[in-house]
Formats: sequence, C-alpha cells, structure tokens
Amino acid sequence: MSLHARLESALDAALSAACAPPAPPRLAHAMRHAVVPGGARIRPTICLSVAAACGDDRPALADAAAAALELIHCASLVHDDLPCFDDAGTRRGRPSVHAAYSEPLAVLTGDSLIVAAFGTLARAAAEAPDRSATLVTLLSRNTGMPFGICAGQGWESERDIDLAAYHRAKTGALFVAATQMGAAAAGQEPQAWEDLGALIGEAFQVADDLRDTLCDADMLGKPVGQDDRLGRPSAVSELGVQGALRRLDDILSGAIASIPSCPGEARLAGMVRAYADRLVPSAAQGRWAVPGE
Amino acid sequence: MSLHARLESALDAALSAACAPPAPPRLAHAMRHAVVPGGARIRPTICLSVAAACGDDRPALADAAAAALELIHCASLVHDDLPCFDDAGTRRGRPSVHAAYSEPLAVLTGDSLIVAAFGTLARAAAEAPDRSATLVTLLSRNTGMPFGICAGQGWESERDIDLAAYHRAKTGALFVAATQMGAAAAGQEPQAWEDLGALIGEAFQVADDLRDTLCDADMLGKPVGQDDRLGRPSAVSELGVQGALRRLDDILSGAIASIPSCPGEARLAGMVRAYADRLVPSAAQGRWAVPGE
Repeated sequence: MSLHARLESALDAALSAACAPPAPPRLAHAMRHAVVPGGARIRPTICLSVAAACGDDRPALADAAAAALELIHCASLVHDDLPCFDDAGTRRGRPSVHAAYSEPLAVLTGDSLIVAAFGTLARAAAEAPDRSATLVTLLSRNTGMPFGICAGQGWESERDIDLAAYHRAKTGALFVAATQMGAAAAGQEPQAWEDLGALIGEAFQVADDLRDTLCDADMLGKPVGQDDRLGRPSAVSELGVQGALRRLDDILSGAIASIPSCPGEARLAGMVRAYADRLVPSAAQGRWAVPGE
Repeated sequence: MSLHARLESALDAALSAACAPPAPPRLAHAMRHAVVPGGARIRPTICLSVAAACGDDRPALADAAAAALELIHCASLVHDDLPCFDDAGTRRGRPSVHAAYSEPLAVLTGDSLIVAAFGTLARAAAEAPDRSATLVTLLSRNTGMPFGICAGQGWESERDIDLAAYHRAKTGALFVAATQMGAAAAGQEPQAWEDLGALIGEAFQVADDLRDTLCDADMLGKPVGQDDRLGRPSAVSELGVQGALRRLDDILSGAIASIPSCPGEARLAGMVRAYADRLVPSAAQGRWAVPGE
C-alpha cells in the first residue's frame, strides 16, 4: 500500500471511531469536514517515510502516529481559523469549519480532534505499550506548552516575542514530532531525529512566508497577506524574496546532511531532496507543487 | 499525605512542566488561572479514592490520573465559558479566562490543558507502560467523541437531542473516567467500576440542576439560571424540586450498592455516603457543602 493510502486509511479509522453512534451528528460532520479532503498531508508523510527508513517493524503503530499528527494539525487549523484568531472564512477552497458549522462546533471540533489523536495512539498500544507511551510523550510535547504549536500560537499574544522559541514552536514542533514519532514507532531512539524535523520545519516556515507574499487566495484556497496584516515576523520581510529562497535551499541541504544512519537513509535523503526541488523553483515563479493546507 | 495534598502537588507538577521556559508568559499565567485555586476537585478526589480502595500500588500513576482528569475538567470550563458558548464573565468568583486574558488565550488555554493531561499520563508511563496506555484510552474515550464531554457539549448544537446520550456524555463521562482510571492506575480491571462512576455522575447532574434553580450567582461564583435561559433539559423542569431531591437520593443509594468487591470497599462506601449527605439536605435549603466549579 502507498504511504498516501495507508495514511488515508488510518485517518478514516480514527474518524470512524470518533463519529460512531451515539455521536451528535453535526459535530461528527464537522470533524470529517476538518480532515477530509485533506491538504498536502506533509507531516504524516514525513512520519511514515522516517518509519520506513527505520525498518517499520510495527506498521500499525506508524499508521497511528501519522494519523495522530494529522489530526492535531487539522485541529490547529480549525482553531486558527476562528474569528478570534485569523477570522478565516475559507480553508482548502471550502468554508472553514466555523463558517460551515458555527463557532461553538468549531471549538468542539478542534478539541475533539486533539483528543482523537491521543486516543488513536492509545488504541495502537497493544502492539507495544512502551513505544505507544513514547509516542504520546512526543505528541504532547510538540503540541502543547511550553514547546508545541499551542505555545507557538500563544507567542502571538505577547508584546515581546522570543522569535526563536516562536518559530520553533509554531511551525517546527510538528515537524520534529513527525520525524521523531516515525522513528519511535519503528522502535528507534527518537532523539537522533530531532534535527531533521527541526530543519524541515524551518524550510517549511520560510516557504510559507514566501507563499504568503507571492501567491493569491484562489491558488491557496485561504486568505493571503495574513503575516503582513497581522504584523507577524516573516523571513521575507527580514531577507527579501531572493534572500529567503537562498535560505530555503541552505536549510534543506542541512536537513539532508542531518539524516541519521539507518537502513533507508539514501532513499529518505532522496525524498527530502525531491521535496526541496518541489518547493524552491516553484516558489520563485509563484507556482507551488505543494498545495496550501 | 492527604488526597487533597497529593492532588494539588500533582497538578502543580503538571503546570510547572507546561509553564516552564520558554513558555509564552501570558498563556502560562492563563493556564494557572484556569486550574488554581480550584473548585471542589470532585472527579480527581473520586479517582484517588477508588485507587486507594484498590490498593494504590503505583501512587505516581494514580496521581497522574487524578491530575489529568482535573486538567481536562478545567479545560472544559474554560471553553464552556467562551462567548460563543455560555459567555460567562466569571468563574469561581473571579474573571473567567477569556475575560481576564482574551478570547484567543482562552481557546489556547483549553487546548494546552487538554494536551497537558495526556502528557501527564505519558510522563508517568515509566511506572507501568501498559497501565499508562489504559489510562490514555479511558481519558480519551471519556473526553472526546462519541462518548465524552466534547460529545455532550456537541449535543447542545443539535435540534433533536438524544437525552440519554447527552447526559451520559456531558456530565457522566468524566465521573466514569474518575472511577475507571482510579481502578486502572492500581492495576484493576476498569470495566467493573463503570456503574459507580455513571451513577455518581447522574447524581451530580441532578444536584447541578437543583443548584442552577435554587442558588444565586454570588453563592456559586458563576452565573445561574443558565439551563432555563439556554433551554437546556433539566431534572428540575422534569420532576420538580422535591422529585429531583428524591431522585438524587435513589441514585446515590444505587451508587453505593454498585461498588465492586475490593480491599477498601467499606471505606469507599462511607465516602460516597458522606458525599451524598453533603449534597442532599443542603440542596433543599439552598445551601451547598460542595462549592461551585
């Protein structure tokens, strides 16, 4: 089965468990709306790719890790779109969850997706309880406070922003979770995989800053110019477009160099290089191989 | 150490982990505001009492379970108080989190507390990874969709409410989690403890309906008359005050009868009876031994 098919099947299993009777129907629909059809599914694809590079001896655990990551990512998008944050009426070219289902249901959808992520990891625990506990630790660390995406979003409510902590938490954390959880699902020590995740996260942040500057809303399926409008820090405002493109290239070279020695090392390096090639030249032309999330 | 001291210490450990540097300071303060000083801490007290009745051979796991439950409960209060739900400006006699810190920080506080709950369980996993996985399963089942408190809140956005599912999820779920997680932390089969939790939850729901009718806002530290104003179903509107009081007494007798055979059975029965005595006569007089949450 392809990584894509494995992930969609794992997400479907997680959503089917969450939306089974006696679920209140509108909240169940809103949860599905938030997750399917998806965006680029970048984080879970990285997670499954790392698990594969590490031997993937417990595929059910890797599937659960990948699905859990994507559920957390989707939850963060639903809450980020709320009127009190970005007030985004569209997402992936469709109405955002609060626009389609109401603000209370959007809050509950995010909450329920976060909980479903941890439930998905726990359900896979029979495979290997110690690995499952490591996965719960990694996911909570990179989602919550003080290191995860909640902390990243929290920095936007501060007058004085710790920029390094902000970027690491806001975008980097779930990429670190992706590489570390992929390794842990396959029984490898996750620590060695932190740098790869952090560097892919940095690259993604720079690419996202470029996208926010260069693309239009129709192309992305969501509002653009948000960084500028909200006064958020950005690689483009700091380095200019060409400087940001050079930075992106450097970071991805570093990411490839950081891959720990493992059975599938060469193949994984090829995958990261292909990902880099898709991001960099398209960016300069305002075309994006990786669709918006 | 008393159950109360154990719980506060476990909550402090969880909050200290979540609020350590490099946490964004305002979100860290908002998390503490949501949890300390607490309300009645009923659910975690039940959890620790059941663990004690079952022998409590891994106290660190029971502490983590109790703290995780209370973090989830506090998260639900923060999100329930949001303008799009109850729009409550006060909680426990102080400004609610969104009133004190802003709506974005209240959304993030709830999210971060949910994540911290699962992180707390994972950190205690070294004690016994298989029990930790069971605790994560029980907490996610009783928090999320389709059985947990998120589902309960979700029913309030439906035109046709499944009343049994609504009450079981909205109030019962975290009491079921309390008894089952207490038993699981001590290595016992959680299933046998479901009825006790469900019955205590039913009793609490009836008591809460009475409180919403009989008490004033100063006494509770939060707005009253919410059920009536929001057209929510209530035992008082169904049975009248005296009928609801009789129902409360019957449910608590059933709860005591449901306690599974265990080393601390008699003591636990005494504790539930004392809890019942505190609820019932005070209710009739509009005085409440158990303060509002």
